[in-house]
Amino acid sequence: MTSVKAYAAHKADKPLEPYQLTRREPGVDDVEIKILYCGVCHSDIHTARNEWGGTMYPTVPGHEIVGKVSRVGANVSKFKVGDTVGVGCFVDSCGHCNNCKDHQEQYCENGHTQTYNSFEQDKKTITYGGYSTHIVVTQGFVLSISDKLPLEKVAPLLCAGITTYSPLKYWGVKKGDKVGVVGLGGLGHMAVKLAASMGADVTMLSRSPGKAKDAAELGAHHFALTTNEETMKGLANNFDFIIDTVSAEHDYNQYLALLRTNGVMILLGVPPTPADVQAIHLILGRRSLVGSLVGGIKETQEMLDYCAEHGITSDVEMIRMDQINEAYERTLKGDVRYRFVIDMASMN
Amino acid sequence: MTSVKAYAAHKADKPLEPYQLTRREPGVDDVEIKILYCGVCHSDIHTARNEWGGTMYPTVPGHEIVGKVSRVGANVSKFKVGDTVGVGCFVDSCGHCNNCKDHQEQYCENGHTQTYNSFEQDKKTITYGGYSTHIVVTQGFVLSISDKLPLEKVAPLLCAGITTYSPLKYWGVKKGDKVGVVGLGGLGHMAVKLAASMGADVTMLSRSPGKAKDAAELGAHHFALTTNEETMKGLANNFDFIIDTVSAEHDYNQYLALLRTNGVMILLGVPPTPADVQAIHLILGRRSLVGSLVGGIKETQEMLDYCAEHGITSDVEMIRMDQINEAYERTLKGDVRYRFVIDMASMN
Repeated sequence: MTSVKAYAAHKADKPLEPYQLTRREPGVDDVEIKILYCGVCHSDIHTARNEWGGTMYPTVPGHEIVGKVSRVGANVSKFKVGDTVGVGCFVDSCGHCNNCKDHQEQYCENGHTQTYNSFEQDKKTITYGGYSTHIVVTQGFVLSISDKLPLEKVAPLLCAGITTYSPLKYWGVKKGDKVGVVGLGGLGHMAVKLAASMGADVTMLSRSPGKAKDAAELGAHHFALTTNEETMKGLANNFDFIIDTVSAEHDYNQYLALLRTNGVMILLGVPPTPADVQAIHLILGRRSLVGSLVGGIKETQEMLDYCAEHGITSDVEMIRMDQINEAYERTLKGDVRYRFVIDMASMN
Repeated sequence: MTSVKAYAAHKADKPLEPYQLTRREPGVDDVEIKILYCGVCHSDIHTARNEWGGTMYPTVPGHEIVGKVSRVGANVSKFKVGDTVGVGCFVDSCGHCNNCKDHQEQYCENGHTQTYNSFEQDKKTITYGGYSTHIVVTQGFVLSISDKLPLEKVAPLLCAGITTYSPLKYWGVKKGDKVGVVGLGGLGHMAVKLAASMGADVTMLSRSPGKAKDAAELGAHHFALTTNEETMKGLANNFDFIIDTVSAEHDYNQYLALLRTNGVMILLGVPPTPADVQAIHLILGRRSLVGSLVGGIKETQEMLDYCAEHGITSDVEMIRMDQINEAYERTLKGDVRYRFVIDMASMN
């Protein structure tokens, strides 16, 4: 066992504070990673504050991890000490169900192991995330990271990147498709960049006129103010796809009406309450309302390689580990462009 | 102009009664059809009683029409007098939008012409449906009917048949797929027959234990009582597809939870109020909630040919035209197995 520095939440209503965490010694299939950067995802806040229930305290969040391999187990051939690697939202799965065999570990039928606040496949050892100096992960769930791109900007690709890339690929977004993106946060800004990189004609759909400039800089071709009735009427039956990244309560029907025949609205956020859906919006135009959860390991590697090739990274604001509580507050206010990333060197 | 016998609703709260209807003389592209049988669809009742709003009285419902060609226009080559033909839910469309060009006239971007209570493409002439001895329809919207099958049992295929066939084909239901059907009425009983004919493993999902025997006779392989919590738990993550034919208020989430990863729930009914949808049911398992509206003319012909080849018809109860008001009441009580069909000879 190795003792490593971390930051943990000990109670739902208390700030995160320094915590001494024990990691397992790398087993034969394990990779030990010295963490360089860890992105701050909204899920971290939900978990730290027990907003989804089920938080096992103390909890160490963080699932957008980039670092360097520091030790490897005897059976590890894919990685060697010094390699740049990443870890995303999960660190293990059953490996034998239909979805795992199909490289869709995110939908493991027997329950995958999330990077934090989850159980290892022994169903009893709790996992702790990337707000720490090191992590030990079985090699099949470690991603190769190119050194072409600034690593701190790569970290958020491990969650925000794959969560938006996977549905764009699964539903076959292609050149010329009209894609609307709802919500310009960590997920939304990656959805704009990735959809644009695939040749789609991207429209940012927002309630805030102030987001127009940012959206354009990120690669959106159009901006539509969703509070303007005339604008919304003009966009009826317009989009092939709408990527909805909002996890606050909002009206799905307003967006469904903007889809063309056979159009698909992809939900990535989970609002706290169920949303009203009018069947007629789906029936008239054979529209689809769908959901998507991150992506499998193979597809995450594909996404990382794609981003390296196309020069796509996340827009980030660097923080020290001891700024995490302030970063949470600013994230909740939407005051971040577009992802906080912790510089883990600040732990030393 | 030709005067023909019909039955019409003159007011939302009055019974249908005999009505003398004027049909146009067949134009060069028109087919005049002597109607033999007309199915009674729930939409007929909604329209007669103005439950969807917008009913233009007097209205003559009926869009499940089978008959014989009685006259043809000069340009009609596909049909000749005496041919057995059918007419479904719509009788014209713009013909030049993307959806019309793609044989998806049901989603005509400029508004298709429904068989009744709708406007012809001149946007002013009102249409009147199949509760009448004759109808005149432009040739492109007339279907060929095989004489292999009992024609009165073919009539409901023109709406209930295509409405269930089209989504099964569009979403690619195939041999071995697990298909759940919700609601055992006019649409539901066709969904069971058609899905089973495609090799799917079909489960009838119902609140009424009394439907188990009928479902089995129609070809369902399994029956699940949706009020039984244990049964529902056992069916979690089970179905590739769920065809939901219910137009009363009901809980979608209960059924979404029964879908496997990548499963699709297809809505065919329009409940009077929006339904609650929990995004998490869609996100965990990349599930889809979709809708579908009847089918295009080309696909309707394909469906009719498929049914002729496979010996698939609707289960019907024959009525005289003057029994229509009683039939409406019984339809509303679900007291019909599974479609009333009017014998138009009863008009003479």
